[in-house]
Amino acid sequence: MTSERPGLWITLEGGDGSGKTTQAGLLAEWMQQRGRTVLRTREPGGSEVGVLIRDIVLHHRGDIAPRAEALLYAADRAHHVATVVRPALARGEIVIQDRYLDSSVAYQGAGRVLDAIEVRDLSLWATEGALPDLTVLLDLDPSTARRRLDAEDKPFDRLEAEREDFHARVRSAYLALAAAEPQRFLVVDASLDPDDIAVLIRARMSVIV
Amino acid sequence: MTSERPGLWITLEGGDGSGKTTQAGLLAEWMQQRGRTVLRTREPGGSEVGVLIRDIVLHHRGDIAPRAEALLYAADRAHHVATVVRPALARGEIVIQDRYLDSSVAYQGAGRVLDAIEVRDLSLWATEGALPDLTVLLDLDPSTARRRLDAEDKPFDRLEAEREDFHARVRSAYLALAAAEPQRFLVVDASLDPDDIAVLIRARMSVIV
Repeated sequence: MTSERPGLWITLEGGDGSGKTTQAGLLAEWMQQRGRTVLRTREPGGSEVGVLIRDIVLHHRGDIAPRAEALLYAADRAHHVATVVRPALARGEIVIQDRYLDSSVAYQGAGRVLDAIEVRDLSLWATEGALPDLTVLLDLDPSTARRRLDAEDKPFDRLEAEREDFHARVRSAYLALAAAEPQRFLVVDASLDPDDIAVLIRARMSVIV
Repeated sequence: MTSERPGLWITLEGGDGSGKTTQAGLLAEWMQQRGRTVLRTREPGGSEVGVLIRDIVLHHRGDIAPRAEALLYAADRAHHVATVVRPALARGEIVIQDRYLDSSVAYQGAGRVLDAIEVRDLSLWATEGALPDLTVLLDLDPSTARRRLDAEDKPFDRLEAEREDFHARVRSAYLALAAAEPQRFLVVDASLDPDDIAVLIRARMSVIV
């Protein structure tokens, strides 16, 4: 770090409908009130190149070969970390990011045909081993998440349209990742009131800020 | 192979201006005259998804992080081999392909900042280890290649605009790859008359058809 105030990198994980966007907003607001510069970003699609990659992965008509999909996510990640995340951290900023490598491991490794370790190794090669200071897992059972998304009445993209049992496998994979790295992860019950969740996240943040 | 006549996979390698397109055409014509079904394809951009990826890699304004670029090429390769090359070979066809993993190793590994072994391993993971039956390396010194391209008076893309010493390093890397796998490679002097080159390629093909 070149700044006296070191940057901090927080990623938010969880299924669609688990409240990642809401919590990212509340956390950003809180950090800004404490005088910090906040960068909100996401994967896939957190850079200009990433937007093009995200468009291929999420909206291409027809199937993408599983290894090609994993490599596209890794390419997005490599470019995003190198050109967005690392420079912001070097400036001492707070980077609050929607989804990172745990998404790839949970969705592709556990949910699909690829080996979870290989998917993780691919991401770590892509980013030269970059890991967040804190990863908040917003844990929600898939049927509750489905009801939330249905209530929004918006069209589902390709991933959202996957079946509910797939989401159950993703949830299990996420919980296993959190159990393996308790120092990095904070697991929160995403069915709680959003303000209560924000309090839990702030409490953990206070330890590392 | 499900066909009685096994498919054959031939890749053409060499710098821009070395005559890959011309030789692919002559070889395809010759195989068709012998009654074979020929599929001509290329990387990057040999599939519908690949065209989108190729567009990002070759024409995106601004730099792409080196690992992101390597991963994009690998993603294109994974999808192309899974959805185009393997099905054609299974149907017993002759696949004649402009560029494959040797391009990535020569251009990215030797010419840029990444490790050649890592780039090769990435491609082999992407394709589950798929290697061509024959790789024709059209070897040409970079200054001759430059003159050929200048004569065409067409605009250069991002890779073509790289400096001549870069192309000299690429050439060395190609020759080293060919020396390491003499069974797979045929190295041809690309400054010869195109018809004479075609004869040399046919002679080698006769051994493996």
